Amino acid sequence: MGGAVTGANRLRVGVIGAGAMGASHARTLATSVPSAEVVAVYDMDTARAKAVADEVGGQPADSPESLVAQVDAFVVASPDFTHADLAIAGVEAGKHVLCEKPLAVTADEARRVVDAEVDAGRRFVQVGFNRRFDPGFRSLKGSIDDGTLGEIRVLHGIHRNASNATSTDDAGLVTGSMIHELDTFRWLLDAEVVAIRVESPITEGFRDPQVATLWTSTGQMITAEVFVNAAYGYDVRVEAVGTGGSASLEPRTPVVARVGGASASVIGSDFVAHFIESYRLELAAWSDAALRGEVVGASAWDGFAANLVAEAGVRALRSGEKQTIDVPQRPGLYDA
Amino acid sequence: MGGAVTGANRLRVGVIGAGAMGASHARTLATSVPSAEVVAVYDMDTARAKAVADEVGGQPADSPESLVAQVDAFVVASPDFTHADLAIAGVEAGKHVLCEKPLAVTADEARRVVDAEVDAGRRFVQVGFNRRFDPGFRSLKGSIDDGTLGEIRVLHGIHRNASNATSTDDAGLVTGSMIHELDTFRWLLDAEVVAIRVESPITEGFRDPQVATLWTSTGQMITAEVFVNAAYGYDVRVEAVGTGGSASLEPRTPVVARVGGASASVIGSDFVAHFIESYRLELAAWSDAALRGEVVGASAWDGFAANLVAEAGVRALRSGEKQTIDVPQRPGLYDA
Amino acid sequence: MGGAVTGANRLRVGVIGAGAMGASHARTLATSVPSAEVVAVYDMDTARAKAVADEVGGQPADSPESLVAQVDAFVVASPDFTHADLAIAGVEAGKHVLCEKPLAVTADEARRVVDAEVDAGRRFVQVGFNRRFDPGFRSLKGSIDDGTLGEIRVLHGIHRNASNATSTDDAGLVTGSMIHELDTFRWLLDAEVVAIRVESPITEGFRDPQVATLWTSTGQMITAEVFVNAAYGYDVRVEAVGTGGSASLEPRTPVVARVGGASASVIGSDFVAHFIESYRLELAAWSDAALRGEVVGASAWDGFAANLVAEAGVRALRSGEKQTIDVPQRPGLYDA
Amino acid sequence: MGGAVTGANRLRVGVIGAGAMGASHARTLATSVPSAEVVAVYDMDTARAKAVADEVGGQPADSPESLVAQVDAFVVASPDFTHADLAIAGVEAGKHVLCEKPLAVTADEARRVVDAEVDAGRRFVQVGFNRRFDPGFRSLKGSIDDGTLGEIRVLHGIHRNASNATSTDDAGLVTGSMIHELDTFRWLLDAEVVAIRVESPITEGFRDPQVATLWTSTGQMITAEVFVNAAYGYDVRVEAVGTGGSASLEPRTPVVARVGGASASVIGSDFVAHFIESYRLELAAWSDAALRGEVVGASAWDGFAANLVAEAGVRALRSGEKQTIDVPQRPGLYDA
Repeated sequence: MGGAVTGANRLRVGVIGAGAMGASHARTLATSVPSAEVVAVYDMDTARAKAVADEVGGQPADSPESLVAQVDAFVVASPDFTHADLAIAGVEAGKHVLCEKPLAVTADEARRVVDAEVDAGRRFVQVGFNRRFDPGFRSLKGSIDDGTLGEIRVLHGIHRNASNATSTDDAGLVTGSMIHELDTFRWLLDAEVVAIRVESPITEGFRDPQVATLWTSTGQMITAEVFVNAAYGYDVRVEAVGTGGSASLEPRTPVVARVGGASASVIGSDFVAHFIESYRLELAAWSDAALRGEVVGASAWDGFAANLVAEAGVRALRSGEKQTIDVPQRPGLYDA
Repeated sequence: MGGAVTGANRLRVGVIGAGAMGASHARTLATSVPSAEVVAVYDMDTARAKAVADEVGGQPADSPESLVAQVDAFVVASPDFTHADLAIAGVEAGKHVLCEKPLAVTADEARRVVDAEVDAGRRFVQVGFNRRFDPGFRSLKGSIDDGTLGEIRVLHGIHRNASNATSTDDAGLVTGSMIHELDTFRWLLDAEVVAIRVESPITEGFRDPQVATLWTSTGQMITAEVFVNAAYGYDVRVEAVGTGGSASLEPRTPVVARVGGASASVIGSDFVAHFIESYRLELAAWSDAALRGEVVGASAWDGFAANLVAEAGVRALRSGEKQTIDVPQRPGLYDA
Repeated sequence: MGGAVTGANRLRVGVIGAGAMGASHARTLATSVPSAEVVAVYDMDTARAKAVADEVGGQPADSPESLVAQVDAFVVASPDFTHADLAIAGVEAGKHVLCEKPLAVTADEARRVVDAEVDAGRRFVQVGFNRRFDPGFRSLKGSIDDGTLGEIRVLHGIHRNASNATSTDDAGLVTGSMIHELDTFRWLLDAEVVAIRVESPITEGFRDPQVATLWTSTGQMITAEVFVNAAYGYDVRVEAVGTGGSASLEPRTPVVARVGGASASVIGSDFVAHFIESYRLELAAWSDAALRGEVVGASAWDGFAANLVAEAGVRALRSGEKQTIDVPQRPGLYDA
Repeated sequence: MGGAVTGANRLRVGVIGAGAMGASHARTLATSVPSAEVVAVYDMDTARAKAVADEVGGQPADSPESLVAQVDAFVVASPDFTHADLAIAGVEAGKHVLCEKPLAVTADEARRVVDAEVDAGRRFVQVGFNRRFDPGFRSLKGSIDDGTLGEIRVLHGIHRNASNATSTDDAGLVTGSMIHELDTFRWLLDAEVVAIRVESPITEGFRDPQVATLWTSTGQMITAEVFVNAAYGYDVRVEAVGTGGSASLEPRTPVVARVGGASASVIGSDFVAHFIESYRLELAAWSDAALRGEVVGASAWDGFAANLVAEAGVRALRSGEKQTIDVPQRPGLYDA
């Protein structure tokens, strides 16, 4: 993945947002992606921007605008409400953008990014759905695509966090956590989600866990559980069930300890550590592609579609009713 | 692991030997190790050197000597018989060397590398025992070091290849394959191997599989099976058994397929693919450390000790008798 | 489980229905349950009855009535439509009955069995929900009951057959297959199912697989997939997810074969073989209890409740709508 | 396995030795083996004999001799030093015997049992090597026998107890624990063990764990670890490695709990519980066969051969030297 890099052709990268995710991306670029060079870091918290910039050998930037101006490409890891505008700024400046998920806070905003690319007649935006680069997920998709499982009928997804780090409103379980599943399901099946229901055994207050049921344009049903207070650790699993068999993604650490009456493998609680390899591969693929003038991974269209389903999911959670989703015609720009 | 890298401080690396392993290392450096830049590639087969050099953005070198002269550090992946002299050339030139295992064909030769470092008063050589960088092996070592398992009494090692790619003489199972276990056991236990027996159920011709029994300076016994015609795939496992419990390294691909009356996980046959992450981490750690003027991983002393045990192993295989190993006093240069 | 048995106090058992299940039960009683003696076998197919009777050392009976008259207790493994009347015949005759699931074809019929017991002021009927005797399911229930998992929020159930052996109408997936889950969920949670939805990705013709969502009286949500044409084998799994952790029943054969590039365990396709130990324990517990004048396992009430939920499930499948279930007050006879 | 049993043809069984194993066998016969009836129990501790007899519906016997006289067949679970004489008493009385392992304390004594059968011209003795009836071990043997694994080259055995319950002398690890492996290996491979070495990392005092190396008449090498103070639980595993692949017996409880940062399965510490199913199947097969006048399972010859190897193992442990074993010609009586 990716060609060799000489000093002449490294991608000059900026990172917008120096929180946990942005700092992690900056470090991964600096230590593991030879095709990229982090030259600028922006954060509203200037001390934080400077600390990360120092660490990765770049300079703090005064503003997102100045950062965009001085780089070849940039990563968006700032608060969600800034994503869409920054992505559009990238498109308008002709700079490649790796935008953390979600692409936007609303589907309408996400649609504006798509429209900007359509207007530009060219794609610049990759959305940070990192699972598309995870070796386990890719292997699962391989089992689906190669026909081993026959025709897929059902998917089952599980997404659990040890404790709720981010959501203050239970709609955040849909827009912040389940959105990964929404992209995963679309990608695994090469399909759109056309209906969704989101329910919870908790009927008042913060509804966690949530159980979603989804329907796809290609005829599958999907169940998905999201539970952000699952206590025991970070756990993501998917099973694909077809007419020829089933394949499950069941990650397991390679060491099995037999101590005190049990045989056990560690389950961590940090999603960045869990998916660290996928982030590295995502960033490398993005940077390598950007140097070639290409975009890989999840597109702005994929980001928009995920937003569209997530919005329907929030409506479903609030109403208790199944919501259908009218997915618009996909612009030809996004044909494979 | 490793700091950020700016254009100014990248390690200018040469790769000697452009066969499968050398080419893989060159590619990994170019695509995944930002702190290194592959500037030169040497191989007796000049076309092969040029092809790899072109791929990674370097230049073919006319000779090992000219390569050594023009780089900051180099990787030795040429035939085994060249390793010791090239390592010594690095030491004498004050260049950091990552030498593929084995460090030398004989313990005497390996000792010469140690002596060269002792004479230089400084270490330059890392031996390519990549398992020391494998996350699974590191986790296993963590379980041993943190006392979870109590006092270790026994290790069991298994090392199988689908088919014999390299050894024409069955002594090669010891010097080419089992040598990885010899370093692994020493490293996991922070101990020397002081005796070894190597036997085989096959008593004539090419003795494969081989079953070794080892004794350590810290009082453990070890069994190790090496089987280079194991048919089903590449499989490396280790179990550490202590007075408090046991821990096994049991790598498993994360996808479980349920098809045709079985629940199955893939076992690959390619050792480079199996350990690809460890190679990347090894090369990155080596390059990052070299930039800091440090050496990490297995030392020349470790390479020498592995050779010493492997030689005893070959004597054991040929004689059918247990061989004791007089490990000389370790020079203070190699104290942690 | 069960006391010793002398010749004097063996339970004289009859078996009604000598098809696959009845013959299996007769054999298990004869070969593995010392407290029981199979003295009579009835089947509409008299040759089949005679063959099984000969095999187990009993006599063929002329009619169900004559069988009931001559035994201490009997097993009902005849066609479903006969279950309720035979169970009631047992109650009226004061004979212990082990009735294969379902207890009845309709909830109304099942209710008649409950009423008969209430009228008799005593319980005679055990319903053959064998999973309650399966060591794996009992262990899972132990993990729920001992509080390890905290408060249970969600269950996920999977029930797959390699190929459809029994259902000609897709409602049969609910009444014939999913009914096991319906009892399992009630039993695991000590709760009633108060609402159910049953949907399928297949919208016309034989709807298989089916995905059910259930709600319990104690506040859990449950997903359950039933797939009777799953091709790869017979597979039953349940995961219980609580505020303290999760426990999954994931049966696996104890032999792992590494052959041809995969590590694999066998998955069988025969549900009787899969659950053979549970059938033995069920029959032994029934017979031992009958000798003591007691009833264990799933009661007539449990059988009725399962029928009630299954009926709602069929309505849900046909209507596409969630169905609520008014579970009547449980008669005190069924208090633990 | 086993035919049906009517009152007329139950095997009248006595149990000699009412300790943990004898009491367990008596209970299993009474509660799970319809073809047998426990009519008599003998123990030097008469109160213990009476308690077990009462529990299983039999009578305490005054002496082993009187017990043998009044039964059709008997189980020997008394102290090891009594086994051979009791087995011979059974042969001489023409009564079927299930003798707990070991058949005798010495190979010479065991040979006397064989000689008694040869003199009688008929077999009466089954030795309690219960693993031959364990479904997992039988499945492993199936994988070996059906050729899936090609030609077997190596076996690896592990046998661990949480804590040492029985051996005061470390030779007891060979004669009491490893003897199970000795029979298992012979049975899995249909071969004799022709040489053995037994060593330990512990060189003084109670040598535990022990690591044995064995050679078979059919050309395999075997490693076997026995560790009776393994702390974490009772663990028995075997791997068979052939030219076509490998198969491992890796028992696992079916429930996986995910709690507190780990995914774990229970490992028990009670070997009777671990192998409870094998004991039941062993006793049922013995009783059923006895009623047919047949002997199944491990023969007196197998018991003798295990004693022979165990004796060589003790010599090997004491001398530190490999011991060869001259297995005498097997009498034709023991041909399959």
